[in-house]
Amino acid sequence: MRTIFTALLIFTGILSAGAQSPDSLYLLPRPQSAKLNSGRFVFAPQFTVGVQGPGSAKLTAAVNRFYIQLGKRTGVYFPQEFITAADNNAGAQLTVKFDRSVLPQIGIDESYSLNISPTKISLTASTDIGAMRGLETLYQLVAPSGTGYYCPAGEISDSPRFKWRGLMIDVARHFIPFEVLKRNIDAMSIVKINVLHLHLSDDEGFRVESKVYPKLQELGSNGYYYTQEQIKELMNYAHDRGIIIVPEFDLPGHSTSILAAYPFLASYPANYKPARRYKLDTIKKLNLMSVMKLISETPTPTIDPSKESTYTFFDGFFKEMSGLFPDPYLHIGADENNGVAWKQNPAIVAFMTAKGIKNTDELQAYFVKRLHDIAQKYNKRIIGWEEAFNPSIPQDVIVQKWKPAPAADTLVKSIIAHNSQVIISSGYYLDMYFPAYIHYLNDPVSANVSAADADKGILGGEAAIWSESVNGDNEEIRVWPRAAAIAERLWSAASVKDVDDMYRRLWMLDFELNDRAIEENTNYNKILARWVSDEDLTPVRTLANVYTQVKGYKRLMGAMLTPGAASPNLSSPLVNIADVVHADSETDWYFRQSVATYLDKHDDTYLQEIKSELQRWKNNKVRFNDLAANSPYLRQISDLSDRLSDAAGIALKALNGEGNKDDQLKQLQQMEKALHEVQLAILPELEALVTGKLKPVPAVYPLF
Amino acid sequence: MRTIFTALLIFTGILSAGAQSPDSLYLLPRPQSAKLNSGRFVFAPQFTVGVQGPGSAKLTAAVNRFYIQLGKRTGVYFPQEFITAADNNAGAQLTVKFDRSVLPQIGIDESYSLNISPTKISLTASTDIGAMRGLETLYQLVAPSGTGYYCPAGEISDSPRFKWRGLMIDVARHFIPFEVLKRNIDAMSIVKINVLHLHLSDDEGFRVESKVYPKLQELGSNGYYYTQEQIKELMNYAHDRGIIIVPEFDLPGHSTSILAAYPFLASYPANYKPARRYKLDTIKKLNLMSVMKLISETPTPTIDPSKESTYTFFDGFFKEMSGLFPDPYLHIGADENNGVAWKQNPAIVAFMTAKGIKNTDELQAYFVKRLHDIAQKYNKRIIGWEEAFNPSIPQDVIVQKWKPAPAADTLVKSIIAHNSQVIISSGYYLDMYFPAYIHYLNDPVSANVSAADADKGILGGEAAIWSESVNGDNEEIRVWPRAAAIAERLWSAASVKDVDDMYRRLWMLDFELNDRAIEENTNYNKILARWVSDEDLTPVRTLANVYTQVKGYKRLMGAMLTPGAASPNLSSPLVNIADVVHADSETDWYFRQSVATYLDKHDDTYLQEIKSELQRWKNNKVRFNDLAANSPYLRQISDLSDRLSDAAGIALKALNGEGNKDDQLKQLQQMEKALHEVQLAILPELEALVTGKLKPVPAVYPLF
Repeated sequence: MRTIFTALLIFTGILSAGAQSPDSLYLLPRPQSAKLNSGRFVFAPQFTVGVQGPGSAKLTAAVNRFYIQLGKRTGVYFPQEFITAADNNAGAQLTVKFDRSVLPQIGIDESYSLNISPTKISLTASTDIGAMRGLETLYQLVAPSGTGYYCPAGEISDSPRFKWRGLMIDVARHFIPFEVLKRNIDAMSIVKINVLHLHLSDDEGFRVESKVYPKLQELGSNGYYYTQEQIKELMNYAHDRGIIIVPEFDLPGHSTSILAAYPFLASYPANYKPARRYKLDTIKKLNLMSVMKLISETPTPTIDPSKESTYTFFDGFFKEMSGLFPDPYLHIGADENNGVAWKQNPAIVAFMTAKGIKNTDELQAYFVKRLHDIAQKYNKRIIGWEEAFNPSIPQDVIVQKWKPAPAADTLVKSIIAHNSQVIISSGYYLDMYFPAYIHYLNDPVSANVSAADADKGILGGEAAIWSESVNGDNEEIRVWPRAAAIAERLWSAASVKDVDDMYRRLWMLDFELNDRAIEENTNYNKILARWVSDEDLTPVRTLANVYTQVKGYKRLMGAMLTPGAASPNLSSPLVNIADVVHADSETDWYFRQSVATYLDKHDDTYLQEIKSELQRWKNNKVRFNDLAANSPYLRQISDLSDRLSDAAGIALKALNGEGNKDDQLKQLQQMEKALHEVQLAILPELEALVTGKLKPVPAVYPLF
Repeated sequence: MRTIFTALLIFTGILSAGAQSPDSLYLLPRPQSAKLNSGRFVFAPQFTVGVQGPGSAKLTAAVNRFYIQLGKRTGVYFPQEFITAADNNAGAQLTVKFDRSVLPQIGIDESYSLNISPTKISLTASTDIGAMRGLETLYQLVAPSGTGYYCPAGEISDSPRFKWRGLMIDVARHFIPFEVLKRNIDAMSIVKINVLHLHLSDDEGFRVESKVYPKLQELGSNGYYYTQEQIKELMNYAHDRGIIIVPEFDLPGHSTSILAAYPFLASYPANYKPARRYKLDTIKKLNLMSVMKLISETPTPTIDPSKESTYTFFDGFFKEMSGLFPDPYLHIGADENNGVAWKQNPAIVAFMTAKGIKNTDELQAYFVKRLHDIAQKYNKRIIGWEEAFNPSIPQDVIVQKWKPAPAADTLVKSIIAHNSQVIISSGYYLDMYFPAYIHYLNDPVSANVSAADADKGILGGEAAIWSESVNGDNEEIRVWPRAAAIAERLWSAASVKDVDDMYRRLWMLDFELNDRAIEENTNYNKILARWVSDEDLTPVRTLANVYTQVKGYKRLMGAMLTPGAASPNLSSPLVNIADVVHADSETDWYFRQSVATYLDKHDDTYLQEIKSELQRWKNNKVRFNDLAANSPYLRQISDLSDRLSDAAGIALKALNGEGNKDDQLKQLQQMEKALHEVQLAILPELEALVTGKLKPVPAVYPLF
């Protein structure tokens, strides 16, 4: 929900809501071209839809969803009860015209054009999926006036910059419930993401039913996995929205859960149980360097690549999974295998010697090649994380780049030189808690890659959410709306990169996402409501709205390194403040616009609004403390409430010309240190109110 | 969420939160016996569960849900990742002990007992389903203190008063999505409702996939129906929670959708399409008496009971549905058949003559008997609405009473005298928009039925929601939490009937329901958020929280009788204020407690709180009007906003001793007339602030 500043910002033109230029629209992702004409198409009880084309069940379903949702949005009773393929009236107010129905695939024609006059809307596309992309744009054009809902007249033509626009969800470390996946698919279709990549197995769990190897889910999970019936339903659900699904089974490392089920596959014998690879209780006693050493030098659960029985197993497994996941890709992970388990096993070392394999990197390449050949039998193309790349692997292996790398990254060039293709996830890790703009400004084509190379080798990119501290209760809070900034980066032109304009649209999109797709707001409110046992949650929401998590790996490492830090198991609740708050604070964004405008123009209206917000924050602790009397958790985090009150009080004094500015700044700077793994998001703006100068937002955040 | 008055009411003892007497607990339904001891069981990271019994997959699943949910509620990291049947440690902090695993059925032993000491919780039951009922009670005992979550030490023993405690959902008139049904089942299990009755067919739609007669869903619905896979999943979901499902196919009337699919079944030829039986456009021109005449004298779509082909059809159909719905009941409707279609068909009249059937009531009894015999072949017992009762029907037909009847109702006595059994829905129709207490005080055993007769013949009761103005967006708002008041009526002792105490617990239960089961709050907020396009919705929520719908059939008849009233079709959105507000206003309930206390004690603290609330209501229109500038719907209902402001202003003046009390009362009384099918719920309390005297709430509401 937007803050009290919205009206003010609209009024003073910062949100430009009134002006009918294409820049004032709330389209996200922005289309390749948009031109507005004078006039408006108004949605009235006469609004009808006709679909013209060779017949497409998924487009008909999408048109019905659009029509019903538009009825809910506008409150207008439209005349058609249910639109069928027979409703092809060219005289309908909205006509949707397409040439052919296609299966969702990478590289299909997703272009569309919209022509809106005051009396007629024409949506035209080559394919039914292109028409579906256009319907989403049309829905985002709908806006209220005092008298009714309308679309501005105009012309839009659009197509994606990249053909691969993905979201990876780790459903292994914490299980993500089926319904949450469906809601993510709904959100993806709104922002035109076309690939759902499911990380289905890791040390902590194996998450899909196998009928050939049923121990995988029986012994490899804590009871939570998707049944084959659910996977079929999910496939249909995704395909109906023009989205493919890429299943990932992480091999040869990250495989504890598989080894728990079938220990004969392991590189060393052990009593495998699905669990975190490194025990937090051990790691917590170490410092960062020792953790790094541990990670590089400890043998970890790893598949044995030297035995033929391994490949027999995966032949059976790939055969089954290829039937279950009909899209043409199979992701085999291949990341973070330090090779130590292999080096310590004499039989594997002997195998390497016999085969002339010089090191464990090459042994992994051998393993990848063997899996590639099996997958090929079942018409699947292999994808692997960047460690899968090796000059000896087949060209048709797709490489997914994930490591944060300097700008002059050479790996992408090597991959393209090898005539392989790459998907970029570097810079798109949503579990880093970075604000959306950091991902938004991260172009998949880095400066040192030529346009020709990019065209040839860069398929696109993928946002990724790893689930060490994510489960069904906060996945939607963590992924959305930030993933939409990445969706725009991958769909829209590279030149579209105005951060303020992106945020203006992102907050409106978040309303649409919560209305039509996800339960981000619902889940946020549910956790806060529990803290206060159903008392009025305004004071805790005021608090939570202005805090964001520490950035980068700090939270993960914090949990590892801080003695006494909470040490959850796979079933532990994720209901603390760092679990629930947004990585981006919408409240802070609006506050920042106001502070920037005030410091620029010294307008008294802004000053009064800012003061009243500061006063509200300062006073918030009174009601917070009332609630804390009966809330164990609020007592734990009362220092956050005190901090908000103190910080707002300092800024208020500074604005009133009271106190010493140097002292005030120092006091605020002392509050930059995180508490409970969260930071006060409004601190830079409060500091600016003291110094009179607003610092630009950081261009990068350190990972550690 | 509770209002600002809560703390005050707790403070002054009205909610008795502090006192540890059984009366202070938030159990709903109330158990048959509860006794508290001194001390508390505190939930700490050592909390473990052991299950002792012969093995029950559904109880193990329920224990895991309980354990995980308790983790979320308390924020405590418990040690067990996943509880299995092997976790049977008698030394666990919570032991769940049961003797046998049973299928959910009417009349099984659902009793349980809880024994809580500061160090141990023992839950004991004969059956796994009894243990599941006890787990729900235990969860409701969990409360926060400043330092942690606890259960008070004590002993509870409990069992239901009635064996049949149902909720009927009409999924035919408007389709109710699958997920919404699952959420209703979750809510039902919390309040120990054990029957989900699905009204699967009516004039407007046929809502379940038939493979034997596929035209039923293809031609008999607007595309929305449950697949057989979904029904299977729903059956498992319900059975896992100790709930049976009763499918209803409404025959011989209310059958337009069936006749649209198979017109040969009809009593007269017509071009049948699934639709409302009476066209609103026709009816709107008539007055109430003419409508009644129309209903009693017009032939309506009705199955032909005279042809053998009818029974051949239903033999095939019952056979298929009996396999799909394994529980032993089949509801055949049999309501509201005026017999005119039969009387007008010479062939049917000839059939009656040949068979010696004297009138259409007896013809319907013949039809019921024939269907009874078919159902018996498939081991199903027939249920019919009260019109199905006739002295000639088989004794094992269960009769569901629905008509609002005078206290000296004789039908129940006749049914029992016939050695048949009855389920009471009279007084439990949630679509009447009555406040919860009306249903709560409606005992299923009316005064003129003897205890012995009741024991013999009254199986229990069912709440019912008909869906003329209900769909997936507001079903949860309409049913919950009011259905819980009926659940308590059917579970708890007849002597438990303190209305204020019921409401005290109901609002807390509503928090639990929204946290664990339903999306009532989510759906409410979504509709309001759309009205304001994501601006701060506080002003519209303030408004919506104090309005409730007109009561009884007024809304339905209003839509029929008011020229120009909205005339929705089956797909139209239900997003107006009368669609979204609660039939019971929680805000009004808390306000009423405050006003009552103030008028009783003239305490200044209450006076100041009441004035501040009145001021907030009075001022609400300012921000409402700001929002209305850009909201077509808020402009339409600005008279409701003005009314709230005016009414609060009048009461404020009266409290301040300004103005003329007679005039003020008259002005308030003029506001009793509904606008937009809603009424200002706080009006009786505002009037009381003028007169100094709070009238009791109505004992009954007129139906028309």
